[in-house]
Amino acid sequence: MLDKSHCISMDEASRLSHLRESFVLPEETIYMNGNSLGAMPKGARDRLLRLADHEWSQDLIQSWNKNDWFVLTSFIGSELAKLAGADPDEVIVSDSTSVNLFKLVICALNINKPRKKIITDNNNFPTDIYILQGIVNSLGLELELDVVESNDVLSHVDTETALVVLSQVNYRTSELFNMFEMTQAVQKQGALILWDLSHSCGAMPIQLNKCNVDFAVCCGYKFLNGGPGAPAFLFVAKKWQSKIDQPLTGWMGHRDPFAMSTDYEPATGIKQLLTGTPPIASLVCLAEGVSVFNGLSMDDVLSESEKMGDLFIRLVDELCAGYGLSLVSPKDSKKRGSHVAYQHEYAYAVMQALIKKGVIGDFRVPNVMRFAITPLYLRYQDIWEAVSILKGVLENEDWNKKEYLKMAAVT
Amino acid sequence: MLDKSHCISMDEASRLSHLRESFVLPEETIYMNGNSLGAMPKGARDRLLRLADHEWSQDLIQSWNKNDWFVLTSFIGSELAKLAGADPDEVIVSDSTSVNLFKLVICALNINKPRKKIITDNNNFPTDIYILQGIVNSLGLELELDVVESNDVLSHVDTETALVVLSQVNYRTSELFNMFEMTQAVQKQGALILWDLSHSCGAMPIQLNKCNVDFAVCCGYKFLNGGPGAPAFLFVAKKWQSKIDQPLTGWMGHRDPFAMSTDYEPATGIKQLLTGTPPIASLVCLAEGVSVFNGLSMDDVLSESEKMGDLFIRLVDELCAGYGLSLVSPKDSKKRGSHVAYQHEYAYAVMQALIKKGVIGDFRVPNVMRFAITPLYLRYQDIWEAVSILKGVLENEDWNKKEYLKMAAVT
Repeated sequence: MLDKSHCISMDEASRLSHLRESFVLPEETIYMNGNSLGAMPKGARDRLLRLADHEWSQDLIQSWNKNDWFVLTSFIGSELAKLAGADPDEVIVSDSTSVNLFKLVICALNINKPRKKIITDNNNFPTDIYILQGIVNSLGLELELDVVESNDVLSHVDTETALVVLSQVNYRTSELFNMFEMTQAVQKQGALILWDLSHSCGAMPIQLNKCNVDFAVCCGYKFLNGGPGAPAFLFVAKKWQSKIDQPLTGWMGHRDPFAMSTDYEPATGIKQLLTGTPPIASLVCLAEGVSVFNGLSMDDVLSESEKMGDLFIRLVDELCAGYGLSLVSPKDSKKRGSHVAYQHEYAYAVMQALIKKGVIGDFRVPNVMRFAITPLYLRYQDIWEAVSILKGVLENEDWNKKEYLKMAAVT
Repeated sequence: MLDKSHCISMDEASRLSHLRESFVLPEETIYMNGNSLGAMPKGARDRLLRLADHEWSQDLIQSWNKNDWFVLTSFIGSELAKLAGADPDEVIVSDSTSVNLFKLVICALNINKPRKKIITDNNNFPTDIYILQGIVNSLGLELELDVVESNDVLSHVDTETALVVLSQVNYRTSELFNMFEMTQAVQKQGALILWDLSHSCGAMPIQLNKCNVDFAVCCGYKFLNGGPGAPAFLFVAKKWQSKIDQPLTGWMGHRDPFAMSTDYEPATGIKQLLTGTPPIASLVCLAEGVSVFNGLSMDDVLSESEKMGDLFIRLVDELCAGYGLSLVSPKDSKKRGSHVAYQHEYAYAVMQALIKKGVIGDFRVPNVMRFAITPLYLRYQDIWEAVSILKGVLENEDWNKKEYLKMAAVT
């Protein structure tokens, strides 16, 4: 049986163990919620101080040029392109994932006229489904949206399908789509594909161009550690950049914003996807998050993540059997994203008890506990501790206590 | 003739002079560009440090509840409502001005069906015109957009007009629309009105509800001092909140985001206008900017702004006559927003020379210099200094020098 000292030796062997020093982490806490909000990179504090003490307060408006505020969205985009298997001029940082999804869906529909059907799966992250519903319901464009079972997407894709929108990793169960196979199969029907990388980018290698992906969006505050509500990014394959017609044509996407002309003319390339002025304080935090990946092998990140996830599952099997937990994530690490999820009748109450004891995961309705695996700052010994604490919680608590029943009822 | 000591005595008499202490300002600089990027409120630095040292790094995901991240958009919105003459539940902070404009234009078009015509003026801020062009050109809705002369808007409004979109203050000339009269006249034709307050809110009292305004948007980083690219706000009159159908239906606008249901159901009231997760680092800066207005009379702000603008114009008349400047802003302060603009053949070069000497205004094509009047941190003595320096620049420089001609050609 595994013990803690074995986990410590796994930490010593990890190719990522030096990276934990790049983050500020709370004492006596095992943070397993990096898929909701990534930990703070150490550089973020100094970067915010530089913004306050020099850029905003002293250089003021001149910072747009002098301190490179103007190029942050494309500079960070080009760094993110490396993580996503894209070219530097195919990625840009802008707005939120939801707003970017809106832009790209309209672009795809304009390209793929007269097709009118959009397909997504019912395990896609809710905001993705909501944005698609907003497009279908509020614009009067006579579109059709099919929200289908995740394992049955392809049987719905046909020659009427304009676009398929999928999240690479299921935010609840952690199941992983095969990006290459899905993309080929969808495109075979003449449909376009848009991938949401929010639960995969920063956690594993992604090969957008090798998979011939058309469009992608991704959140900045999960595995990219960009800070709360960090701006998101979007990807448009080069072949589509001269053919798109995006709807949110703000001045930052104009080919010459300061010409202040009364006619919108899109910038060339990926910059045409920009809309309004970007939130610089949040953008510099994202730059810090992304800079941690400098020189890192995403294969190493994936490999440690898989081992940590496997360890978590193995320890739960060994230590927590018989307490009503059931794994909802794939046991095979090749089919799993970078979190592990369990069902439990009193999942909400169990998670509350864990959080009180310093293990921060999260709860998703109706009865799922999620534990994020973030090898940039999580250790094997943390996995061991977390499962030990989980065991203690499961064996010592009476889940029929009034307060827990109440909690379960609330959610 | 006015001298500097008279200006100092005006500073002493100003009801706002204590507020300058609430800002961090660069030494030996007269900052007259607060209509592009407002100065940094002192509180912003500490607020960013609290975010880094406690909220993000220590409380992590729990900050959404524990540190009130979840309620920031509506809390700041309710504070902004006071500045805009709106009810607290009619204003919310979200996205950029451009994105908010897109949302509200679609809402207005959905309300005012089957009308298809949108009217704006050719002096509206370019991003507003661009967003309208994006809506008309990229969505295939068979809409019509008329971009008309600013002094001739009403003659174009008729019973086909769905919506009129205007900026209260002309970003270039500083001319002010009469919000009350325009709103009544537009609504008389059954059209709706949307005001962009980006160059007015924070600089003068605004009475959205007394003027019966339907919709409004506003930038957070100009007169509200919310920091570079601060999130924007939007206003929807209460009577329309149950009748709108906004297109950017992200999870933050869902009535129960964490139910994670697959069906979008809008939150009630103004919250349904939210889309994605807001950028918290930028949001807390905006909160600091807005907090400076606590307990302030906007009548006092307007009154000092008018006096400062009048002083600037009077001093330019007295000191800079014969140097080719011509005032493009209204001389009557009641018809003017909170900046003063001049034309000059070599406007770009003059502004560059001014900036080198520490007077930071800005240039707008083709030949306009703008000087923002921000009485929260600008002093009468600064106005005196700025015009003295302007005089020195105008009388000592040879604008036919090669470098200046080159600069003029670039813009």
